Formats: sequence, structure tokens, C-alpha cells
Amino acid sequence: MEMKLPGQEEFEASSAPRNIPSGELDSNPGPGTGPSPDGPSDTESKELGVRKDPLLFIQLNELLGWPQALEWRETGRWVLFEEKLEVAAGRWSAPHVPTLALPSLQKLRSLLAEGLVLLDCPAQSLLELVEQVTRVESLSPELRGQLQALLLQRPQHYNQTTGTRPCWGSTHPRKASDNEEAPLREQYQNPLRQKLPPGAEAGTVLAGELGFLAQPLGAFVRLRDPVVLGSLTEVSLPSRFFCLLLGPPMLGKGYHEMGRAAAVLLSDPQFQWSVRRASNLHDLLAALDAFLEEVTVLPPGRWDPTARIPPPKCLPSQHKRLPSQQREIRGPSGPRLTSAEDRHRHGLHAPSQELQRTGRLFGGLIQDVRRKAPWYPSDFLDALHLQCFSAVLYIYLATVTNAITFGGLLGDATDGAQGVLESFLGTAVAGAAFCLMAGQPLTILSSTGPVLVFERLLFSFSRDYSLDYLPFRLWVGIWVATFCLVLVATEASVLVRYFTRFTEEGFCALISLIFIYDAVGKMLNLTHTYPIQKPGSSTYGCLCQYPGPGGNDSQWIRTRPKDRDDIVSMVRKGLSDFSSVLAILLGCGLDAFLGLATPKLMVPREFKPTLPGRGWLVSPFGTNPWWWSVAAALPALLLSILIFMDQQITAVILNRVEYRLQKGAGFHLDLFCVAVLMLLTSVLGLPWYVSATVISLAHMDSLRRESRACAPGELRNFLGIREQRLTGLVVFILTGASIFLAPVLKFIPMPVLYGIFLYMGVAALSSIQFTKRVKLLLMPAKHQPDLLLLRHVPLTRVHLFTAIQLVCLGLLWIIKSTPAAIIFPLMLLGLVGVRKALERVFSPQELLWLDELMPEEERSIPEKGLEPEHSFSGSDSEDSELMYQPKAPEINISVN
Amino acid sequence: MEMKLPGQEEFEASSAPRNIPSGELDSNPGPGTGPSPDGPSDTESKELGVRKDPLLFIQLNELLGWPQALEWRETGRWVLFEEKLEVAAGRWSAPHVPTLALPSLQKLRSLLAEGLVLLDCPAQSLLELVEQVTRVESLSPELRGQLQALLLQRPQHYNQTTGTRPCWGSTHPRKASDNEEAPLREQYQNPLRQKLPPGAEAGTVLAGELGFLAQPLGAFVRLRDPVVLGSLTEVSLPSRFFCLLLGPPMLGKGYHEMGRAAAVLLSDPQFQWSVRRASNLHDLLAALDAFLEEVTVLPPGRWDPTARIPPPKCLPSQHKRLPSQQREIRGPSGPRLTSAEDRHRHGLHAPSQELQRTGRLFGGLIQDVRRKAPWYPSDFLDALHLQCFSAVLYIYLATVTNAITFGGLLGDATDGAQGVLESFLGTAVAGAAFCLMAGQPLTILSSTGPVLVFERLLFSFSRDYSLDYLPFRLWVGIWVATFCLVLVATEASVLVRYFTRFTEEGFCALISLIFIYDAVGKMLNLTHTYPIQKPGSSTYGCLCQYPGPGGNDSQWIRTRPKDRDDIVSMVRKGLSDFSSVLAILLGCGLDAFLGLATPKLMVPREFKPTLPGRGWLVSPFGTNPWWWSVAAALPALLLSILIFMDQQITAVILNRVEYRLQKGAGFHLDLFCVAVLMLLTSVLGLPWYVSATVISLAHMDSLRRESRACAPGELRNFLGIREQRLTGLVVFILTGASIFLAPVLKFIPMPVLYGIFLYMGVAALSSIQFTKRVKLLLMPAKHQPDLLLLRHVPLTRVHLFTAIQLVCLGLLWIIKSTPAAIIFPLMLLGLVGVRKALERVFSPQELLWLDELMPEEERSIPEKGLEPEHSFSGSDSEDSELMYQPKAPEINISVN
Repeated sequence: MEMKLPGQEEFEASSAPRNIPSGELDSNPGPGTGPSPDGPSDTESKELGVRKDPLLFIQLNELLGWPQALEWRETGRWVLFEEKLEVAAGRWSAPHVPTLALPSLQKLRSLLAEGLVLLDCPAQSLLELVEQVTRVESLSPELRGQLQALLLQRPQHYNQTTGTRPCWGSTHPRKASDNEEAPLREQYQNPLRQKLPPGAEAGTVLAGELGFLAQPLGAFVRLRDPVVLGSLTEVSLPSRFFCLLLGPPMLGKGYHEMGRAAAVLLSDPQFQWSVRRASNLHDLLAALDAFLEEVTVLPPGRWDPTARIPPPKCLPSQHKRLPSQQREIRGPSGPRLTSAEDRHRHGLHAPSQELQRTGRLFGGLIQDVRRKAPWYPSDFLDALHLQCFSAVLYIYLATVTNAITFGGLLGDATDGAQGVLESFLGTAVAGAAFCLMAGQPLTILSSTGPVLVFERLLFSFSRDYSLDYLPFRLWVGIWVATFCLVLVATEASVLVRYFTRFTEEGFCALISLIFIYDAVGKMLNLTHTYPIQKPGSSTYGCLCQYPGPGGNDSQWIRTRPKDRDDIVSMVRKGLSDFSSVLAILLGCGLDAFLGLATPKLMVPREFKPTLPGRGWLVSPFGTNPWWWSVAAALPALLLSILIFMDQQITAVILNRVEYRLQKGAGFHLDLFCVAVLMLLTSVLGLPWYVSATVISLAHMDSLRRESRACAPGELRNFLGIREQRLTGLVVFILTGASIFLAPVLKFIPMPVLYGIFLYMGVAALSSIQFTKRVKLLLMPAKHQPDLLLLRHVPLTRVHLFTAIQLVCLGLLWIIKSTPAAIIFPLMLLGLVGVRKALERVFSPQELLWLDELMPEEERSIPEKGLEPEHSFSGSDSEDSELMYQPKAPEINISVN
Repeated sequence: MEMKLPGQEEFEASSAPRNIPSGELDSNPGPGTGPSPDGPSDTESKELGVRKDPLLFIQLNELLGWPQALEWRETGRWVLFEEKLEVAAGRWSAPHVPTLALPSLQKLRSLLAEGLVLLDCPAQSLLELVEQVTRVESLSPELRGQLQALLLQRPQHYNQTTGTRPCWGSTHPRKASDNEEAPLREQYQNPLRQKLPPGAEAGTVLAGELGFLAQPLGAFVRLRDPVVLGSLTEVSLPSRFFCLLLGPPMLGKGYHEMGRAAAVLLSDPQFQWSVRRASNLHDLLAALDAFLEEVTVLPPGRWDPTARIPPPKCLPSQHKRLPSQQREIRGPSGPRLTSAEDRHRHGLHAPSQELQRTGRLFGGLIQDVRRKAPWYPSDFLDALHLQCFSAVLYIYLATVTNAITFGGLLGDATDGAQGVLESFLGTAVAGAAFCLMAGQPLTILSSTGPVLVFERLLFSFSRDYSLDYLPFRLWVGIWVATFCLVLVATEASVLVRYFTRFTEEGFCALISLIFIYDAVGKMLNLTHTYPIQKPGSSTYGCLCQYPGPGGNDSQWIRTRPKDRDDIVSMVRKGLSDFSSVLAILLGCGLDAFLGLATPKLMVPREFKPTLPGRGWLVSPFGTNPWWWSVAAALPALLLSILIFMDQQITAVILNRVEYRLQKGAGFHLDLFCVAVLMLLTSVLGLPWYVSATVISLAHMDSLRRESRACAPGELRNFLGIREQRLTGLVVFILTGASIFLAPVLKFIPMPVLYGIFLYMGVAALSSIQFTKRVKLLLMPAKHQPDLLLLRHVPLTRVHLFTAIQLVCLGLLWIIKSTPAAIIFPLMLLGLVGVRKALERVFSPQELLWLDELMPEEERSIPEKGLEPEHSFSGSDSEDSELMYQPKAPEINISVN
């Protein structure tokens, strides 16, 4: 059980996808990257053309204090975004998108056109560079000397390390002026240095008014070899570019703005690419013109030019901007995206190798084993990283919480046939075994919500027929294992391609609603067993001293951790990671503090099954007639469907292309493992286990490899996941060891667990697009959010789709509430059929936005095309950039 | 009591001020605007230069379907922002800031430069216009005929009224083609019509590819007289501008983008101004160039050009963009802002006429009466508007809730010396009297938090000395009235200029904390009186049937209305307006439903004082020794300070320039009224009343006059407040009539009222800047929000200021908790002294950002100037635009 649903934030990102692939910084993918036999690495290589060049750090030094106290001061810096020095506040501004005025760009262009352009200048020091730059005819020898001295002055950098206000008074004594060339200690200690990747280069723009110049002086230098130019830049980086913009005083902030324009130009990846390869002034100006061609212009009456735009969540794809010769570097795959690549980028289920039918019995399983076997040694070696240690701690807590919660609820639902002890033991055994054998070892096994729902149905069914529950359950397990093996043999897992968002959302919504309904129901039931005290006619105002049960408080507690998060967002992450643990602890603490009479978690005091009088092995028949072992095949069939859907929906989500898994999936192998563990847990009378979406996603999230270097304002680049088996294994060994925590667990009040259950239901429900669309039903068009979906599908069609989903959900709920409840897994499968039928109602375009496409529809796209109905130029093509961003995994949070 | 604190949203706006003064739309300020003898109307007149011209609605019709089915279709429209037709979804996009590509602007420029420009074209119909436009030499007569027919074709508009998808198939039969000139019914019924002010004009841009043209055809027409051009525009508006951009097919979306560029140009206020006055092509191109000079440029590598920018909260000031001849129109005040005007725009307390000392006894009071008397008749006539009716309903509910809550709590704090009946009666009498007499009749009187705190202290003091409370209280009231009269006579109210945000925040924070502390304390106390049932050793799991008191649930209920709001934001406003009523109703409902034994509101069944055995008139001595009537002067002095501060802080907030009050304030008169009412309520033993900030702000908010016309994406323009006496009067008459509700009120559980109190404390505390700065203390710099404050004041100085405030607050709290508690009003006044001392620690620049300036500091500014210490060009001047936005009233929410 895990309170932070990763899918939730991913869903929020649907209207503004993250910048996963835009990686200008990660020139070093890190030592952990293994070979990539069949991983989807094509998205990465696409950016290679841009990524080849080193990163550029740009700094603007302005000449201030004319005429009394001339001084160079750093006033701005750029890596990806602009940071401005807030002089009065003495701090760097938050990184923001740089905005320019058009005239400053034009003035810069004309200054460069008339100025000095040195490409591949051989200068090896600042002195040599300054000499080269000042070798201009228009300067008299005297002026040249003055200018050289000025350019050699050490600039004032805001010292971020000491954090003190820059001492920029004119009385400031200049130190160490004898050795201007040596880099300073501050330059090495600059914290920005850590954020830049090795090999980064610097570009410096020097701009300002210089009264003794008769006419403007512009110079642009590209050094042949990057050289550390003394204390010119705030970080000790080898400089590659040097731009000088000086001139007589002019109106306004001309040179400041021109300097900013030059810096912004240099920070543009495309301009950088061109100017690194420019061979003459003409190339330089052409690069500037190409920049101008592509700028975005905001009208002055509708946008305040002083407003700072925070860094966008996704940077524009630089792919389209590559000139033809640059694109060719990208290799033989060619500049045109194939339709398969397109689909990859859309995050659709591509019919990848793992889901190709071989046509042989157990063919898929054999292929899975063959594919995964070569990775087996690395599955342990790759875990040798500190990050894995923290992942273990985090996932262990989540797993234990999960085991407590589900163990408690299972025990509650089955009158002790299952319990916390079984939950811990089963989790440890099944989880560890799965981690050792499975195709996708990042998966964390757990008793998930749907299985709990089914187990409760099964238990009440067996009670209705006065059956001995555990033996009956054993046979159900045997049959389920058999059916699952048949599914493995027949390669049924390839059908997961038919699980679209429609199915996943239906599944998720139903389970969430059951959770909410049950949690509320349980709480209301408690008012019967532990009634709320009502005043008698005579007791008003008197003190009733009789000790008796009181109310409960878990609902109040449950909202606490969220409120607290808002106070300090740095603390936020830490708290949210452990919010469920905190909620349980708070609940238990308050319960103990107030001494409430609440029902507590039932935990046996010894290491023996919760149900009194049974051994660890379940007897095959018990008191049941023998033919129930055959009859058990019917519920087992239904449970198999449920297990298959739950397991595979989770597997599909975990193996999405966005996670850039290198070692491939193993849909067949995973199902095989689940089947074997089904048998094992049934024999031992332990809970049943399948993959848990949320907790597995959290596991993967805690194992993210990200680029270390991260420019100000940039989101960290996602490089992949540390795929290995060790973290999971250790987590489950620890969980097994936690069985001896049982004496502590009995202090946990059940209402606290119900509260967590309620929260999980609400959180899961609010994370799916379906819920958002239901809200749209009630919202006038004017107030609807600007979802991409709404730009492309008429509102009436969106409402129709939502209404159909609502009807399906209603039918499922009705079935669940009737005596036919046990067949509801079959009805879940029926969702796939309904979705198939929707193809007759909605166009593929609409389904692409409202859902995903099924395999046949995908195939039909190349013929039909995904263009709008008419060749209307002013339409969707504008969104094409957004469509090139990979869709984040939008919902698909099934509750675990 | 009012749950929605208006100041809260105003505080949020502090980093992005609202666009109150940017009013291009309100060409008709409405019939309700009265004369403006001394109102601060100069901010309005500043925009007059821009506002003279009628509003322009611009529409882009594109020529599509070449070559088979040529057709004009509307694809975009502009008033302030851009709306794009989402073709696939069949709806208008959300309004957004238009973004252009630079080449499209340049192409447009060259097309216009070579094309036909007709300024003051006399055409009276579309036919005449088309004939004029096609009179181009390059066209053969045959082509001209074809082109004319094409231009006379009726364009397809997306029909917003029917809401159906535009039927844009090529099979669509053309209707009514015989009469192209007559406007259509849809054009009149277009809902957009309602949003545009009378006198609005239309501009149409026609753009597209036309295969039979050999070379591009550009035409720009300004009609001499605006004429309705048949069905050309989607709304039936007289057209003023007409722009034609046709040509042979070109690469990309050339004409679409050019058409958008032309439309965006026309929607720019400055370009509009110039082009309305242009006399030749040269002027037109100069206007275009002036536009280009001022555009904001976003670099292609850092901004996705397809991203849609939502309308900014504040539009840039167009003031600076006015050319000199345009500025002259503005009148004799001249283009340069005086420093006083500057301060007005900064929202500082300007030493306005009301706060000038006359130097005569009661001089201020007499002036107040003189100033307000001429408005008296209009104070009743101005109330004749439907809006006042809904304001009465809204404020009546708030007042009644307030009377219940504070009545209940006062009764609780004084053992029934005050009660709900007294609260209703006092509110009605004092409120109505104040509305009839006061200087600022928009003020709603109420027993506010500080007075409640003081009354509790006074009661416990009188109990400690075994005093007869009400007679002692009468003497306190008599003394307070006397002291207040002295304050009126000596014109002490002019000192309110020394109440800066520092004082207001200290006051507010202390009261909020007392509220929170008290509410939590009361709830915990209840666990003694009404204990939570604890399990005995033998009762675990058994049913205790003894009726007895149980827990309470108001905390859970209190958060309900907020959760619900999130579901449907349209419902949001309605719910939030009545959230406190709903919270009370829900709490009472749940209490009744569960039959909880909670303490209830004590209400007498008859119309008699709550305290048994006293008459309506308080006896002057009771059982107290006579000299206590003299000793009462000491607490009265303290209460006078409290009343003065509470009343005047509220008055300052209500009379801020941002509210654009026309009839002026009456600080002295208001205090006089409070003094008189103090006497009256003390004699009758009713609660004491001063102005209540929050409820009065809600009153003003419900009486806002706003521009009716509102372009898509624009926030409504604030025109002023309906200043009158009638709404308040009716509210209090209704409150008086509600005394007969008393029998219903006794069902309200006290914990519900405590919950509301707790909420008020938390809400008020979270609305002040102080809280935000306390959070900054705990936040690393990287994660701090981009507050303007942080751009201008070093973080260490911000922290120092916050720390000083925290120490002050701690001292106040300690004093409040000791036996010296009763002198805490004096300590509040001490805050003003501390603030004065801070001038030695902080520079005026820092205090301007952290607080406001005191009168002496303000006077010192013209000499010192508000420039940064050095003449460093690259600094604050960039923020000057933001500083031109009037600061919204940032905090100043004292709890009522």
C-alpha cells in the first residue's frame, strides 16, 4: 500500500507532458548503462545530433560606473534559461525563459555585421585574446591601450558561496590585481560547477557604454581551443566564445539589452550548432537570421515584456529545427519518423517483440526465459549502488504497511482464515520467489484490491453453502494455477494489447468505488457494534462515568499528512513518502492517547496460523464433499480472469516505453510465476498475490537513473531504471523478518486501516481521466480546462464516451451487488468487448484522444491517416509539436 | 462572520496584480456614476487617451478548399486575446495571448507595402467595398470578376448558438445566396454581441491561397464610415477595417499566419490608435514598425511556439506606449506622474484630505459631517439597483451567522451576561444606527474578535474581584465613550497613518492565534465535561447501552464545504458564499442525526435578557462599591486603545484608494458614532461593537460596479462601489426581526461554533504576508516563490524583519498569558513604536517592500529617491511596469 500514486502526477502532466526526451545536458549517460539488445533506445538517439556539442555556459559582464569607476560586473547568466542578478536583493533570480526586444537583436546584428569576427582564434590566454580583439583600425594606439587595460580588469562576480551581498560600492578595494590571469578559488568552488557536465564550455558577453569610444565596437570570437580565461567567468570553465559590445553612450539600456540578446543567442542550441561550424561572418549572420525566423513574437499590448515566464514543463523539440546536414549525422534511420516510431512517441502499445505470438505451445514462455537469461548476472551486479539501499528502505516500509493493511482487512473479511501473519509470511515467500524468477523483477507482488474483493465474495459463498473454506480455497487455487498455465501455454498474454485505457479505467473505477463503499460501510457498521453514545432525556449535561466505547477519529487523522505537506514543500517529499506510515502512527497514537475502545488488528501471539487449530498445510478436502473440488473450477475460472487482467494490466503499465527499460519484459514468464505462487499460497493457506501497480511504480521510481548535471530551471533528465532483482529480494526478506513485529501490530485500530482504504479509493478514483471527464459533464464550456482532448474531440462526443463508461460502471456495480456478484470478473472482461463495439460509434481519431487504439485500429491508421477529415490547413498541425512529446502514462492506476 | 476572506485572494494577487486600471472596454462607465468632488479618479483619466476609440472586434476568414470547393471560413477571432476555432472539437478555444512568427509579420509588411491601401474609403456596402478593393491594375477583367464573386460569397461561421458542429463538408448546400448583403439572424443572436460594448466596430481579415492569382494581392482598407458588411463578420457590427491577403499557393501556412499577424496587429491598442489616424501608406507601415519595435521575443530553443499562454492577470500598461501627440489628449495634468500619483498607484496611504489635521477642537468631525452631508440623499437613491437586493440577502446571512457565533461565544465567556439575544438586539440597534449616521456607511458593525477577547478578560477580572459584572461594564463603557470623544475632539484619527502593515499584521496574527488557541482549548476542555468514553478492562467489545455523552464531529464537518467546492467550480462561488451557513447546518444536522450529547447554544425562550433576573437597563452601581466606577477608567483606557485600533485599521482598509470610493471617508465621524453606540450598548447591557473588516469587505464586494462588457479572457473591469446606506440599514432591520428565530437557534451545538472560530483563525493567519515570510524562513532559496519582495530585499533582511515580528508576537503572547493580560491593547500600540524603531535598522527601500512607509518616511522619499543605491542601469527599472500596477490591498484582514 502506497499513498503517493505516481500516476496522479503523471496524469496531471497529460496537458503538459514532461520533458523526458529533451536532453541537452546528459552528454554522459553514466557508467551504469548496459548494453541495449532490444530496448527502445531510438528516442534517445534522435537527440544525438544536438547533443554532440559540449554544453555552453554563458555569462554577461556589463561595464558600469562610467566615467568615474569603470568596472565589469556579471549581471546575468544562461545555461538553458536566464538568471538575472537581483542587485538589491543580492541573489540570482529564479531561472526563467529569456525574453528579448526585437530592436536589440537587430542592433546586435548590425553591430556584428560591421564589427570584428574572429573564428578559430588561436589565442591561449586572456591577454592574447584582448590583443587580438583590440586590433581594430578605428582605434588610436592610446585608446587601444586604455581598452586593453579595461578588458583585463577582473570582473565582479556575485559570490554565491559566501551568500553575502556583493560589495559593489565604488570604495571597494581591488585585490590581486597583479595577477589577473590566474583563476580564482571562488571560480572553482562555485556550486554551479557541480551542475554542469564535464566538458562544458563557457561563452562570455561583455557589453557596456564606454564614453571615450567615438563609434560602437563589436567583436565576436570563437576560440580554436577552449581556454580558461583567468577570472573572466564566474565558473572556471574553458571559454569557447567571446563577444564584445561596446560603444558611446546611447539612449536607454541599449548595450545591456544587446548583451542579453547576444547571450540568449549563444544559449540557443541551434545557433550554437551553427556558430560552432561557421566559417565566416556570413555564416554567423545567417545563423542569427535563422534564429530570428523562428522566434515567437508576443504582441506588446497583450504581454508585459517585464513579466518573467517560468521554465516550461516541456522544451520544444529541437528535432524539427535541425538543418539538413545536421540531421544526416543522426545516422541511417533517416530524418523521417516512421509510423512505428510515431506510435512509440505517442506512448501507444506498440506490438513489441514480447507480445508477438510464436504459435508454439509455451513458445512465449520459452522466449521470455531466453530473453531474460543473459541479463541474470547483471540483475544482481546492477544493484551495487547506494540508490538501491534507499529504495529498499522505502519499498520495505510500503510493503509492510501494505501487508498490515491488507492482512488486517483480509482477516476481517474471512473471519481469520487469513490474517496479518499470513499476509507477512505470504508476502515474503511469494515476493521473494517472484523477484528471483520473474520476467520483470521490478514488480512488487502484493494481495491487491480486486483479489481481496474476490476473496470476500468467495468466503461469503463458502459460508452460504456451509463449506470448509480453506480446503475449498485450495481447490480454487489449484484450478486457477491450471488455468493460468493454460493461458501461458497458449500465449494468451499477447491479448494484453486489447487492454486499452477504457478497460483499465473501468477496472480501476470499479475497484476504487468498492474500496470507498466498503470503507464507509465498515465505519457505519462500527456504529452498531460500538455505538455512538446518545443522550438520554435526563443525562444532558451530566457526566456519564461509565466506561464505554466512543467514537473514532481516523478520518480526521487521514487528512493530516496532506495539510502538513503544504507548510514546507521541502519537507513535503519526505513526508509524502511516508505519509501512510505517519497516518497509521498518528491514528494509533491518538487512539492510545485518548484510550478509545476501537476494534484492533487481530494478530496471533505466536508464529502459527491466525485461524485457530489449523496447521500450515491445508488439508485437501476437510469436511467438504469431494465434488466441490471439481465445482471449484467455476469460481477459479472467474478468478483466473481477474488474476490475468490484474497481473497483465500492471505488467503493461510497468513495461511502458516511457520507462526506457533495457532488459525487456516477460509477460508469459510473469504469469507463469504467478500461477506457481498461486498453487503454493493455496496449499499453505496464505493470501493470493499478483503484481501491484502502485507499489511497483514506486519501486521503479525510487530506482530512476537521472542525469547528475542539471542546469538551473531544467528538470532532471530521466536516463532509465536500475533494473535488477536484488532490491525486491531484500525487501521481501526484511518483510519476512518483520513477522516478529506482530506483537506491536495489535495496537493498530481497524478504523485507521479503513481510513487508509478510503483514502486509497478516493486517490485512485481521482487519478483517472474518467473522473476528469465526469467533472466535465457538470462544467460549462467556459470553465473547462484547456485539455488537449477537448481541442480535438467535440464536447458532445466526449460526453457520450463518458456516459457509456458510466453506464458500464453502473451495470458492473449492479452485478456486484446481486447474488451473481461472483461472476463480475467475467463482466470486467466484457469491458474489452464494449470497447471493441465503440469502434462503430467513434472514429479512430476520437478514440485516439479519448482512449488508445486497439491493434486492428492501429494497423488501419497508415491507410486512413490521422489527419482531420478535411485538408484544412489551419487545424491540428499546430499541435504537432505537442504530439511529439511522449505521452506520460496517463492513468492506469489500479489499486494494489 | 464570513468564511470567504476577500483579502485572501487579494493577497494572492500581490505577486501578479489585477488589471483594474487597464480598461479598454468600459467606454460607457454606466449611468450609476455620480459626481466626483474629491474622489481619486485620476487613475481612470490616465487611460482616457487610449479609451476614446471604439473597441474593435477582429475576425479572420480563411479561403479554403482550393481548387474544388472554395469557401471562406472563420478560423479565429480577437477582441483582447485570440480565440482559435478548434475544428475537430467544434468549439472556440480558450482565449489566449496570441503568438506570432516573425517572418509572417515581415511578409505581411512587404505585402502591404506593395499592395493597395485605402484610407477613409467611402464604400457603403460589401459590394462597393469589393469593387474598390479589386480595382487593381494587375488583374485582368476576367480575374477581377472571379475575385469579386469570391469575395461576395458568404463566409461560414461556427455557430455558437446552436452549439452544433460546423457543417463544413463540401456537400453543404449554400443557402440564401441571392441576398448576400443582408445580415443574418445568427449574427444578431451571437452571444459575443452581449460582451461587446455599444459602439464596437469590426475589422475583418481575409486570407488564403488562390491558385489563379499570378502574384500576391494585398489590400488594407479603412472605411470612412463604419458599415455593416452583410454577413462578413460573425457578429453584426459595423466594419471599420478590411484586410485582404491573397496569393498563389506558397510553402507552409503562409497566408494563415499572415492573416493572423494582421489580425493581431489590428487588435493591438497602439496600432489601432495609429491606424485610425494614418493618412497614408507610410503612416500604416510606421505603425507596423512601431509594433515590431515593442514586441516581446521568445527564443525558439526555450519556448514552444505552439504553447498557448493563458491571458495574464495584468495587462501591460499602455501608458508608456502612447506617442507624444496622443499623450497630450490626456489633459493638463501632463504626461509625467507626480510623486503623489505614484504613491496612489502604489496603494500607499496618501495623506488624503480626510486625514489632515485642522487644529481645531472637533475640527475633523465637523469636516467629516460637512463632507458627507451633501451625499446624504444620494446615499438612499443610489441603492435603487437589483444588485443591492442580493447584497442585502448575502450580508444578512453573514450578519446573522456572525451574531449567532459571537453571541454564543460571548455568552459562553461571560456566563450568560451576554448571549445570543443580546447579540441580535445589539447588532440590530447598533448596526442600523451606524448605517444612518456614520461617515462610511458601507461598514458593517459587529462584535469583533479583539473585543470578545477583551470582554473575556474583563469578565474574569471582575469575577476575580467579586464584582457585579454588568454595572462595572457599564462604567467601563462610559469611560470608553468619554475617551473616544476626546480622541475625536483632538483629531487623533489622523494618527492612523502610522498604522502600517507591520502593525496590522501583528494585530491580526495575535488575534488569529488567540482564536486558534481558544478553539482548540475549548474542544479539549469539552473532553473533561463531556469525556470521551474509555474502555474499561471488561467492556472491550461489549455494548455499553448507557446513554451518555459521546464525541463530537465538527472538525470533520468544517472541512466539508471546501472539498465539495472542488467538484464543480461554477457551484464553487455559490457554495463558498454560504459556506459558513452550510457548515453550521451540516454540523447541526449531523449532531441531530447521530443524537450526540453536545453542549448547545443557550438561548432564552422569551424576549428577555439572557442573564436571569436583570432588566434591559443596567443599574449604575449594583453591588459594587462606588469607587469601582472610577477605577473602571483604567481598563476603559485599554479598551479605548483597542477600539480605536480595531476601528481605524478597519476604516483604513475600507477606504483604500483601490476601492475607488467617490463619497470619501469619515474617520472622525465613524469613531464618534462608535463612542455613542458604546455608551448605548453599555447602558442596555448589549455587546460592544466596532467595524468588522471581513464582513464590511464582503459588503463592499457584493456592491461592486463592474463593466458589463467583457471581452473573452478579460477580467471584468472594476468601476467602483455602490456607496449607499440602505443595504446596511435593511440588513440590520432584518437582523432585528430575526430575534424571533431564537427558538430555532438552540439546536446549534457549541463545538460547531468553535470549529468556525478555528477556521476563521487559520484563514486569517494564512492570509497575511507575515505567514508567507515565516514559511520563507524554512524554505531553501531554490524553492522560494518568485515574490517581488524577494527581488528587491536581501533574504537575510527579510528574515530579520520576520524574526523581529515573531519576537514581538511572542512577547504579546506572553503578556496575554500572564496576569498582566488586560494591558495587551497597550502592547498592541507598542507595535507602532517598534515599527518606528525599525527605521533605524532597515532602509526606506527595504521597508517599502516589507511594509509600507510611515508619513515621515514618505516625505523623505522625494529627496532620497527610491532608486537603488547605485546608478546601476540593469536593475530595478525592469520592474517598473509591475510597479505601475496598483498594489492590491495585500493583507490587513483582521478577524471580525
